[in-house]
Amino acid sequence: MTNGAQALMKTLVDAGIEVCFTNPGTSEMHFVAALDSEPKMRAVLALFEGVATGAADGYARMADKPAATLLHLGCGLGNGLANLHNARKGKVPVVNIVGDHASYHVPFDAQLQSDIETVARNVSPGFVRTATSTADLCKDAADAIAAARGLPGQVATLILPADASWGEGGVPSPPPPPPVAVAADDATVAAIADAIGSGKKTALLLGGRALREPALLAAARIAAHNGVKLLGEVFPTRLERGAGLPFVERIAYLAELAGVQLAEIEQLILVDAKAPVSFFAYPGKKSYLVPESCTVQTLATPAEDAAASLQKLVLALGAESTAPALQPGQRPGRPRGKLTAEKVCKAVGHLLPENAIVIDEAITSGLMLSAMTAGAPRHDLITLTGGAIGQGLPNAIGAAIACPDRPVLALVGDGTAMYTIQALWTMAREQLNVTSIIFNNASYSVLNVELERVGADEVGPKAKSQLDLRGPVLNFAQLAQGMGVHTVRATTTEDFVKALEYALAMPGPHLIEVVVPESLNGVKRRVLPWLLRSLPSLPPALAKALKQKIAP
Amino acid sequence: MTNGAQALMKTLVDAGIEVCFTNPGTSEMHFVAALDSEPKMRAVLALFEGVATGAADGYARMADKPAATLLHLGCGLGNGLANLHNARKGKVPVVNIVGDHASYHVPFDAQLQSDIETVARNVSPGFVRTATSTADLCKDAADAIAAARGLPGQVATLILPADASWGEGGVPSPPPPPPVAVAADDATVAAIADAIGSGKKTALLLGGRALREPALLAAARIAAHNGVKLLGEVFPTRLERGAGLPFVERIAYLAELAGVQLAEIEQLILVDAKAPVSFFAYPGKKSYLVPESCTVQTLATPAEDAAASLQKLVLALGAESTAPALQPGQRPGRPRGKLTAEKVCKAVGHLLPENAIVIDEAITSGLMLSAMTAGAPRHDLITLTGGAIGQGLPNAIGAAIACPDRPVLALVGDGTAMYTIQALWTMAREQLNVTSIIFNNASYSVLNVELERVGADEVGPKAKSQLDLRGPVLNFAQLAQGMGVHTVRATTTEDFVKALEYALAMPGPHLIEVVVPESLNGVKRRVLPWLLRSLPSLPPALAKALKQKIAP
Repeated sequence: MTNGAQALMKTLVDAGIEVCFTNPGTSEMHFVAALDSEPKMRAVLALFEGVATGAADGYARMADKPAATLLHLGCGLGNGLANLHNARKGKVPVVNIVGDHASYHVPFDAQLQSDIETVARNVSPGFVRTATSTADLCKDAADAIAAARGLPGQVATLILPADASWGEGGVPSPPPPPPVAVAADDATVAAIADAIGSGKKTALLLGGRALREPALLAAARIAAHNGVKLLGEVFPTRLERGAGLPFVERIAYLAELAGVQLAEIEQLILVDAKAPVSFFAYPGKKSYLVPESCTVQTLATPAEDAAASLQKLVLALGAESTAPALQPGQRPGRPRGKLTAEKVCKAVGHLLPENAIVIDEAITSGLMLSAMTAGAPRHDLITLTGGAIGQGLPNAIGAAIACPDRPVLALVGDGTAMYTIQALWTMAREQLNVTSIIFNNASYSVLNVELERVGADEVGPKAKSQLDLRGPVLNFAQLAQGMGVHTVRATTTEDFVKALEYALAMPGPHLIEVVVPESLNGVKRRVLPWLLRSLPSLPPALAKALKQKIAP
Repeated sequence: MTNGAQALMKTLVDAGIEVCFTNPGTSEMHFVAALDSEPKMRAVLALFEGVATGAADGYARMADKPAATLLHLGCGLGNGLANLHNARKGKVPVVNIVGDHASYHVPFDAQLQSDIETVARNVSPGFVRTATSTADLCKDAADAIAAARGLPGQVATLILPADASWGEGGVPSPPPPPPVAVAADDATVAAIADAIGSGKKTALLLGGRALREPALLAAARIAAHNGVKLLGEVFPTRLERGAGLPFVERIAYLAELAGVQLAEIEQLILVDAKAPVSFFAYPGKKSYLVPESCTVQTLATPAEDAAASLQKLVLALGAESTAPALQPGQRPGRPRGKLTAEKVCKAVGHLLPENAIVIDEAITSGLMLSAMTAGAPRHDLITLTGGAIGQGLPNAIGAAIACPDRPVLALVGDGTAMYTIQALWTMAREQLNVTSIIFNNASYSVLNVELERVGADEVGPKAKSQLDLRGPVLNFAQLAQGMGVHTVRATTTEDFVKALEYALAMPGPHLIEVVVPESLNGVKRRVLPWLLRSLPSLPPALAKALKQKIAP
C-alpha cells in the first residue's frame, strides 16, 4: 500500500521537483518518513523556516524549476513568509508543503491550531489549497506544481493535513504539462517598432526573463540599431551580466537617482517589467517615477516570452544583422590601504571567478559592487526582489544546490545577515561551495539616509539607537564558527583579499567578516553629498547627467 | 504641531504602554523619531521580529499589561508571527504596531507591498485595523489597546500607514478604561458546589489566571475541604509555584499520560481553562482527552474572574476556614557524575534563587524540571503556550524588562534556541539579568518519539537525518560570544553547577551551554519504556496509576 505522503513524494519527483528544503515537526513526520521512498528526492534541513524558503527561492532562480519546502503548520509558514514574499515579488516558482493537523483534529483548537490559509494568501494569492483526502492529494499537488511553474512563476501553497498524509490509498499524479510561453502578438510588435522608429528618445526596461542572455542579446541589437537605451529593473530576480554580455543600466533604488535616469526618456517599453515606482513613499514626493511626458508601452508581460518577443521586434526593426554592444572584459586592480566596503567590492571584481553566482544583499555596503564587477567574467547576479531582508544567505544555499559546479558569493550586510543567520549551519552541513562576505559596519546604515528622506530628521538619542548595532558589536566570525563554517574576520584590505583568494581556491563554505566603516558615514542629514559620492558606481552618462541635475 | 507618530506615542504611554520592542524600517521612521518625545517610552531593539514579539509576550506575562511591538510591514509581521501565535494561545495582551506604506503608495504595488491584514488575522483575529488618517489614528490606537487588554487578553494589530504617522494634526486619545472582570454567577457556582458535593471524583482544571496565587489558594482550600484534585493546564501562560504555594499537577503533554491522569475523574470543572485535547493527532487515537464517562462543567471562562469565582465557590462549599495544602520547601541535592539533562534540572532545583522567573522551552531535556523545582523557593513558570518553538529566549528578554529585580532563567533546547537565537544580542545590549541554559543534545529529540507515535516507524537514513542536528554540532558558546553574552560550555556536571552558581551570583546576561545526551536516547521506536522512565518526574499517585496501567 502507498500512503498519501509516499504518493506525494513520487508526484513531486516525477514533476522534476527533486529538492525539498525542510523544517518539519510532528504533523510532517509521514512526509519525512516517505523521503527514503524516493531516491531522487534530496531533503535539505534548515534550522529556521526563513532559511528553507529563501533556499527554495535561490534554487528556483538558478535551476529554473521549483523546489519544495516542508513547513510546520501556520507558524512554520509564518517564519518562512518574508523570503516567500521575495520569491513572489521575483515571480519565482516555489511549492510550499505546509503540514497541518489531521482534519478531524482541527475543531479541537489544539495549541498549534491557526488559520494557515490566511497566512498563505499573503504570499501565494494565486494558489492556496488544503488537501481534503488521501485519494485526491496528488491531484492537488499536481495543481500546485502547475500553478507554481506557470507564467509567470509563483509561490503555490499546498496545505497537507496529517491524515491525508498518513492515509493509505495514495495515487501519484502524472506531471502537469510544462507551460508554453507565447511571444507578443504581431500588432503589439508592429506598434512598438513604429514607436521606436519615430525617433523619440526610447528606453527598453528589461525585467524578469528579459535579463537572461537570449533576451539581452536581442535587446542589445535593438539598442545598437535604433539608439535605444537599455534599462534594467532595480532588483532583478536573476541578471546575467559581465564580460561578453550586453550591459544594462539598472534603475536606481533611490527615487532621486531614478528620476535622473528617466528624465530624458520619451517612450518607455516594458519587457517583462513594470513601470518603475519608488521603493517607499516619501512626504511630498511622487510614487510613480515615470515622467508625465513619457509614454509607457508593453512589449511583453511577465506571462509572455520576453526573448521571443524581443526577437520579433529585432526582425520588425531589421536589426538582425546588427552586432550588439558587449561589455568588454576588465577588472579593477587589487585594492590596498584602509579596508572599506568599496574596497571589498573592488576585490570581488578583481578576483571574481568564471561563472560565479553573486548574491547582493549588501545594501549600502554594496553600493560599488555593480560597477566593480561590470567587466568581470560572466556571472549571474541575484538581488533582493521583495525588500524583505534576510534573503542573501538562504538564497546562496539554494543557488549552490542548484549549481554545484559554480562558485557562489553572497555579499550581505550585518543587519540583514542576522534575520536568517541560521543559514550558515545548513551551508556547513551540506558542504556548499558558498563564500559569504558579511559587511560589519555595526549599523542599519541605510536607515540613517531613510530617516532624512522621510523628513524625520530631528531625532534624539533613542531614535538614533534604533539604527545602531553597536553595544555589543556582532562578531560574525564567532557566529560562523558556532555553526561549523570556516571563517576569517578581516580588518585590513590585505587580510580580506587573502581570505577571498583562499575561499575561492578551496571548496566552501567560507565566511569572511569584513569590519568596515559605514559607507554613508557622516552623511546623515545630508543625502545630496551621498548621492554625489555614489557617482563612481554609475555609468558615465548617468553620472554626468546626475552631476548637472543635482550638484550644488 | 504634533504629528501622528508623536500623538500615538503619547496615547501609548498614557495607557501605560511604556515598552516597545522594535525592528523598524523606513516606513516606521517617524515612529522611531517620535520615541524621544516621550521620556517614559523605552524602545528595545531586536535584530529579528520574532525576538520582538516573543519579548512582548514575555513582558506582558510578567507585567500584566501589554507592551507594543514595532514591525516593518507584512514581512516584519510574518517574521514575528510564531511568537504572536504563542501569545494568542496564552491569551497574552500585545499591541502590534505594523508600519505600512503611505496609503497613496499602496496602489503602486512596490516591492514590500503585501496584504498585511490577512497575515495579522492569523494571530489577532479579534482586532486588526488599518489607520486611515492622522486625526483618527489615536482613537484606533486606543481601541487596539482596549482590545489587547480585554478579557481575555489578546493580540491586537494596528497597521500604521506612513502618511498617518507623518501627517500633522495628531490628537492623543485618553486611555481606555481598564476592563472589569466579573465572577461566575451565583447559579453556576451553586450548580458546581452541588456537583462537588455529590461525592463523585472531581478535578478542578486550572488555567490562565487561575494559576496565580489568589486563585490557587482558593482552589487548594476546595481541594482540602472536598477531596477535589487540582490539575493545571499542560502549558501554562504563567504558573506561580514552589514552596509555600499549592501544588498543581499539570496535564501531561503526551496524550498517553494525560489519559492516565484523567482516567478516574468523573467530573471536570474548568476554571479559565479548556477541556484537554491532544497536542497533535495520532492515527487511531482520540483528540479529546476527557473520558466519555466524565462530565465537564465551567466555573469561570477566560473572560471571567477566576480568583473571584473560586472564592465564591469556597464560600458556597463552606471551605473558607479550611487550610490549603502548601508545597513544603525542599530542594534536590547537588548533582554529581556524568552530565545529563536530568542533572541540569536537578542543579536548577538545587540552586534556584528566591523569586525567580523560570522559562521552560527545554522540550525533552526539561522532562525533570517540574519535579526538581517543585519545592524550590517560590517562582513563576512560563511555558510554550502555542507550540511555536523559539519562544524561550525572547520571553526571557520581556520578563527581565518587566521584572528587573528578579533573576530570569531560560531553559531551552538546542533546536528551539536556533529559531530566535538573535535574542542573545538584545540581552547583551540591554544588560538583562537572564541566565540562558541551552541543552545541546544535537537532535530534534522529541521528533524521534513523535515519529513513532504517528506510526511512521519504518524510516531510512534520509528521514533520520531530518531529526539530527549533528554534522556540524552547534556551538552555542561561540554563538553567544558572537553576540556579546558571557558564556560557558559545560560538559561535566561539576562545571555546570559552578557555571550556574556564577551566573546566579553575577548580573547577567549569561549563557550556559550544556552538552548532554538525548534524554530519549535509545528509546526510538519504543515509547512505552520512555513513559516509564518519566515516572520519577510525576507525582507519586500519578506514577503509581501509570505503572499499573501501562507497565508491560
